[in-house]
Amino acid sequence: MSDPVARLAGISASFPAHAEPSGDFGLIGLAVMGQNLILNAADHGFTVVAFNRTVSKVDRFLNDEAKGKSIVGAHSIEEFCAKLKKPRKMMLLVMAGPAVDDFIEKLLPHCDPGDIIIDGGNSHYPDSNRRTKYLAEKGIRFVGTGVSGGEEGARYGPSLMPGGNEEAWPYIKDVFQSIAAKSDGEPCCDWVGDEGAGHYVKMVHNGIEYGDMQLICEAYDIMKRGLGMSYKEMSETFAEWNKGVLDSFLIEITRDVLAFNDDDGQPLVEKIMDAAGQKGTGKWTAINALDLGMPVTLIGEAVFARCLSSLKDERGRAAKILEGPSPNFKGDKKAFLENLEQALYASKIISYAQGFMLIQHAAKEYKWKLNKPSIALMWRGGCIIRSVFLKDITNAYRQNPELENLLFNDFFNKAIHKAQPGWRDVVASAVQWGIPTPAFSTALAFFDGYRSKDLPANLLQAQRDYFGAHTFVIKKEYANEKYPEDQHIHVNWTGRGGNVSASTYNA
Amino acid sequence: MSDPVARLAGISASFPAHAEPSGDFGLIGLAVMGQNLILNAADHGFTVVAFNRTVSKVDRFLNDEAKGKSIVGAHSIEEFCAKLKKPRKMMLLVMAGPAVDDFIEKLLPHCDPGDIIIDGGNSHYPDSNRRTKYLAEKGIRFVGTGVSGGEEGARYGPSLMPGGNEEAWPYIKDVFQSIAAKSDGEPCCDWVGDEGAGHYVKMVHNGIEYGDMQLICEAYDIMKRGLGMSYKEMSETFAEWNKGVLDSFLIEITRDVLAFNDDDGQPLVEKIMDAAGQKGTGKWTAINALDLGMPVTLIGEAVFARCLSSLKDERGRAAKILEGPSPNFKGDKKAFLENLEQALYASKIISYAQGFMLIQHAAKEYKWKLNKPSIALMWRGGCIIRSVFLKDITNAYRQNPELENLLFNDFFNKAIHKAQPGWRDVVASAVQWGIPTPAFSTALAFFDGYRSKDLPANLLQAQRDYFGAHTFVIKKEYANEKYPEDQHIHVNWTGRGGNVSASTYNA
Repeated sequence: MSDPVARLAGISASFPAHAEPSGDFGLIGLAVMGQNLILNAADHGFTVVAFNRTVSKVDRFLNDEAKGKSIVGAHSIEEFCAKLKKPRKMMLLVMAGPAVDDFIEKLLPHCDPGDIIIDGGNSHYPDSNRRTKYLAEKGIRFVGTGVSGGEEGARYGPSLMPGGNEEAWPYIKDVFQSIAAKSDGEPCCDWVGDEGAGHYVKMVHNGIEYGDMQLICEAYDIMKRGLGMSYKEMSETFAEWNKGVLDSFLIEITRDVLAFNDDDGQPLVEKIMDAAGQKGTGKWTAINALDLGMPVTLIGEAVFARCLSSLKDERGRAAKILEGPSPNFKGDKKAFLENLEQALYASKIISYAQGFMLIQHAAKEYKWKLNKPSIALMWRGGCIIRSVFLKDITNAYRQNPELENLLFNDFFNKAIHKAQPGWRDVVASAVQWGIPTPAFSTALAFFDGYRSKDLPANLLQAQRDYFGAHTFVIKKEYANEKYPEDQHIHVNWTGRGGNVSASTYNA
Repeated sequence: MSDPVARLAGISASFPAHAEPSGDFGLIGLAVMGQNLILNAADHGFTVVAFNRTVSKVDRFLNDEAKGKSIVGAHSIEEFCAKLKKPRKMMLLVMAGPAVDDFIEKLLPHCDPGDIIIDGGNSHYPDSNRRTKYLAEKGIRFVGTGVSGGEEGARYGPSLMPGGNEEAWPYIKDVFQSIAAKSDGEPCCDWVGDEGAGHYVKMVHNGIEYGDMQLICEAYDIMKRGLGMSYKEMSETFAEWNKGVLDSFLIEITRDVLAFNDDDGQPLVEKIMDAAGQKGTGKWTAINALDLGMPVTLIGEAVFARCLSSLKDERGRAAKILEGPSPNFKGDKKAFLENLEQALYASKIISYAQGFMLIQHAAKEYKWKLNKPSIALMWRGGCIIRSVFLKDITNAYRQNPELENLLFNDFFNKAIHKAQPGWRDVVASAVQWGIPTPAFSTALAFFDGYRSKDLPANLLQAQRDYFGAHTFVIKKEYANEKYPEDQHIHVNWTGRGGNVSASTYNA
């Protein structure tokens, strides 16, 4: 046990004990995720204290799913705190936003120094930065943790991404790693980093999830509208893919969803409204990427694709007046499906490469120490994006934690080169068929841009200097006395006007 | 003259006059844009008072470009205010951000009620919202105005997009419309709307400018790397395009930039570093689009393309280990270039359609009345994106100010259908050649998505309900007793787990 831990444990022990506290772990918020996490922890031998704002839900839960398990109900915050052993480990699973702050304020009067408040909701990382600092001043250790895996994951093993006040980690490690998913025996949970780092990594996880789902939707659309496949065929194709490089939770559930028939024997998914919901974490990732200046294009397109899908009525009107080609596939379907698998795989490699570029840059920007191999490991199991693929990413970062980019790793470098011809064929076909593939396309455009030593941005810089005197820099190989290296150079392109460089005009 | 205007003019007249104020218009900030706007206003018969934080710049300007013109220098804020007729019209052209607030605070002690402070920098529209309210409380009228056209535009006629406190408009209309560019005799300046509406519209203008420039860069890259054209040929092609549907300032300067040779007879642009700068307004547009949930994909890709370009060194390393196809064009170059022109035109239509979707949605969201025909008119001349194209947009919105989308207008509907085959051919070719066309591609993907009555987001909703109990809605045509219309439906896809809908898990 580390010094500060021992000291804090000592402090904690010196406080008067409440009457027989038995709770190892407390959880507030009995929606589906909260209930399932409690059941999960109880299954692992922990005594869990449950509380909910609407108190009737506590009794319902105790009399139903929680019956006969090591789960104790609380009917007030005071009772909740009184029933927990110190230092208290109290997890909030409530709506991100003001509700978290409200509960923190309600808990504080009943807390002792050294207690641990854990926010397991999808909070935005700046809020977790703020709460870590705020609670540290009061002697309370705050943890903001990403929780992924949906209701199934919460019940049987989620991916957990805790960050915040590192002093808390030794106290919560046991319960966190016990309830977390396991991948090859390793728990999909490790300490992420300071302040909001846990929620940050969860945010990027969710952004990547948006990307993965959009890629699958594009593959499905090509199968359906491009190749005219039946739902049975499509489900079988995803089943096949789930045995190869794409082996993952999302491919697996796609197989099941496509095979799920309504009472009339028709596929239910065909009847579902094609207007995607979103709760904001994908958007946060895209905005953060724009703010940090990192080209995380695939998540951006995935978020925008959800926006476009939600304009359902407008699309209906547009469909009546905007025509396009009719796909009429006559080629080798099996070969095309192999290309499609490769297109999905290559696009996914790009998406994760972009995601890790972002995380890497954020760590620098926010001065967080982040362990890249352990991030990939945390995503390997339990969460929505869990996959065999993430094992390969874990390996890549274990081989070289300083890896500049996933595409520089041998395994992924070979994989993307192998996928490339099929990938191009699929994107070109979709373009000719009139089937939208914004994510496949942007992934390929990124790949081609990233491997371009020279991009056409030289023209862009010349334009900016032409109309706004924004100056440019000369390429090293052309530097000379007139145009020295690393200098801001302005040229009078028109022969008219002054020779002043811009300092206020922004474009 | 409207009632409040007359009243305020009266108030203003009742204040004691400073010693012989002669200035019609004051301008603070003598960088290139400021100097040129002053010269422009003086050319139109206004007496302009000039001030700059570094006062030596005032004298330099007076002894140089300003010599012999109706331009008066001020060496202090006090002198600046004393030399202006009331109500004072004082324009700031300083770095957006704290400098604007600083100057406002410095001006305030020398202002009288009814005076007008104009911010002509590239301020973010929320700041202009704030400043309008703050100054209105003090009896000062604030105007946040977009100014576009770069140094040339400022000198000979910019596009001006003023918004804020509408009481100011009658007082500044004359000078604004005099110095603004004219298009077919109409000034490219009109009152935009409340609070930050002027800066908002300027922000979207800049986003569109990012898009236009990126599209031109992609066309240039295809000509250069795909068709192997010389700079002379490329310049001639842009010259040709400038006589057709693409006739615009940016195409015109591209023609000139590509023809501009260095002393050694080689094209200068080839020597310019391909790492694009940006000052944030394109990013703001993309972030605002994400926040409002509008699929403004082309500007998003244009911003990300600048980000990718700026990773110059990393791209250099990537280029060594990532291979792709070698373009080897053998077809009819003239026909391909016609397709390329159509691809650029169609992508541009999409970009403007997206931009107006955003503005339309923002007006609803922020409760601003915005005049769409006048926005297009303001962009028709003077500014960086000025073009014949914007005349067609002005016409479209004049024909129907309630037009749902540019693509619903006959002219643009015909144009995009005509462009479609060539557009698809260009994007498919670039994909096969390994030349990145993120903006062309995303425009086409948007077009194909927008005209899709049914997108694959039904699968996405099924996935979200599967793993997170997020519920879905049934398509109208499939609604029945079991799955009623407009209801949030959850299905137990796995046969396992509870039957609870999610309320805290967000994906």
